[in-house]
Amino acid sequence: MIRLLSIVSFAALAIAAPVTAQETEKPEFPSPNAIVDAAPASAWVKIAPSDLLVMDLAPDAEGNPRRVVIQLMPAPPSYGWIGNIRKLATAHWWDGTSINRVQDNYVVQWGDASEEKALPEGLETVPESEYVQRFRATDMEEAKRQIVAQIPELAGSLIDDMMRKQMGADSYAPSNVHMGGWPTALDPNVGERWPIHCYGAVGVGRNLSPDTGSGAELYTVIGHAPRHLDRNIAVVGRIIEGMEYLSSLPRGKGQLGFYEDASKRIPINSIRLASTLPESDQPRFEYLNTEGESFAQYADARANRRDPFFIKPAGGADICNIPVPVRRVSGK
Amino acid sequence: MIRLLSIVSFAALAIAAPVTAQETEKPEFPSPNAIVDAAPASAWVKIAPSDLLVMDLAPDAEGNPRRVVIQLMPAPPSYGWIGNIRKLATAHWWDGTSINRVQDNYVVQWGDASEEKALPEGLETVPESEYVQRFRATDMEEAKRQIVAQIPELAGSLIDDMMRKQMGADSYAPSNVHMGGWPTALDPNVGERWPIHCYGAVGVGRNLSPDTGSGAELYTVIGHAPRHLDRNIAVVGRIIEGMEYLSSLPRGKGQLGFYEDASKRIPINSIRLASTLPESDQPRFEYLNTEGESFAQYADARANRRDPFFIKPAGGADICNIPVPVRRVSGK
Repeated sequence: MIRLLSIVSFAALAIAAPVTAQETEKPEFPSPNAIVDAAPASAWVKIAPSDLLVMDLAPDAEGNPRRVVIQLMPAPPSYGWIGNIRKLATAHWWDGTSINRVQDNYVVQWGDASEEKALPEGLETVPESEYVQRFRATDMEEAKRQIVAQIPELAGSLIDDMMRKQMGADSYAPSNVHMGGWPTALDPNVGERWPIHCYGAVGVGRNLSPDTGSGAELYTVIGHAPRHLDRNIAVVGRIIEGMEYLSSLPRGKGQLGFYEDASKRIPINSIRLASTLPESDQPRFEYLNTEGESFAQYADARANRRDPFFIKPAGGADICNIPVPVRRVSGK
Repeated sequence: MIRLLSIVSFAALAIAAPVTAQETEKPEFPSPNAIVDAAPASAWVKIAPSDLLVMDLAPDAEGNPRRVVIQLMPAPPSYGWIGNIRKLATAHWWDGTSINRVQDNYVVQWGDASEEKALPEGLETVPESEYVQRFRATDMEEAKRQIVAQIPELAGSLIDDMMRKQMGADSYAPSNVHMGGWPTALDPNVGERWPIHCYGAVGVGRNLSPDTGSGAELYTVIGHAPRHLDRNIAVVGRIIEGMEYLSSLPRGKGQLGFYEDASKRIPINSIRLASTLPESDQPRFEYLNTEGESFAQYADARANRRDPFFIKPAGGADICNIPVPVRRVSGK
């Protein structure tokens, strides 16, 4: 929610801790990357290994390993599918399946090409209502309280004014905000919140409604955000490492980008929850706290590029053009 | 401009010619593709061969040819750079250069990796003012007249109301409209119009301002629309065929996605204006007239997906999610 902060640009910058800029930049206008690099350790949030899926594809033609890491959303909505995905990984269900579809400017999709492999016991049939989360008006009030606690100058009507003007609206939602590390859309009019199909988002393939998919068939976005899929399919996570192994795959020549020639499919050796790997093999990641000042400055700098290359700052940014910074760390 | 029409959804549909839908679809709710497939021949506009660049990359590892076709914008803004590009192609300047940069979710860039190759005589130094086109208020009035001529029901204040409400606004522009076959942004407040960095857009690399680039260094967008580049770099065209040969290239491992290892660069055998090729080798393309009813219906269907897969139409669409349909045709 308090990506709102991000938006309270100059106000936030004025009270924020000084940022160390690279020497080549005007110190008062650091680039988004320089802001992220300078963020203190306390601005980063560890991702639990139980929220990470590790997908090992077959090595490439030159024998190089191809490991892709997916971060699962740690909170509703979509929790039913995410539960299924944990069960599928624990059952090693994806081992020996494949990437079967690569459609340019759209998606890479993987699962069981035969469509005959039996699913593990105990998967949930998730209702369409879980594409969104019901949103309580009190959350908005709480968000405002938190902002004002950090930036007292915004008390009173100013915070309402900021929120009304500055929560990024577009054709797809009355407002778009980062909450808990994820890009989400909000419709206060109907009290709903839902995750956004940005580049790298991972979703659950399905058949025609009322089917909602089990979670066994997954895809990721490799082009311009297909936001028309929002609220129509479950978003369950995002690629945080190894995206290039998916986005650079040859496009399928069949309908919808499916590989017509089965030999073109890319074998999946295994998909595991990171928490089930030997500890030495567990990847460790953290993301920039979307409720903190560093993220606020980063988002503001993405929306108002003042680093030397730019001559005309946009004055705003699509939420999918403010990707949440995620980085690999060593140790626990 | 009259993508506005696109927006005048139900009104336009009500008076439009019936559309032949595929049997598998509810005939009253054809998919965007079905609308395009059913568009009459008169809805398509031929692209002049002098507005097409044909880029032949070295064949891939299996010996398959890789031809990419770029459509140049036929009208201002950006005309200075496009003039330079015609000269560069005529001088065969790009032959023997290469693709040097592939940055995931951003751009593929090509040109002279040595940065030492002499440019042809007579290239123009284009001023930054040409990133945009000055927009005359009378254009808006003319657009309204054209709409009302086609849909008399919109006469009077209704057309003003529609335009105010429905021109797709976002964080990057007060309004976004398709004009003359291209996605453009408009700011009536400052009287400016500029082309949009959608997926597949082709732009002109440059150094720090006041440099604006000559047109010798080009890039295309292979990820989410980087709209913060709008008005900061010249957009000169778009990829209309062979995009997959660029978007699926291995990502560069160097800074900004440059190939650190020169052997990874992809050689460019030649770039030619299609009009200078032997007539039998000239590709022919046409695009769906963005000022016509078929495009209006298509855009409306992209914004309000009613085909069977969708359960919740978005009610709007990012202009980059309404790509202008382009198709290859035979003969002249």
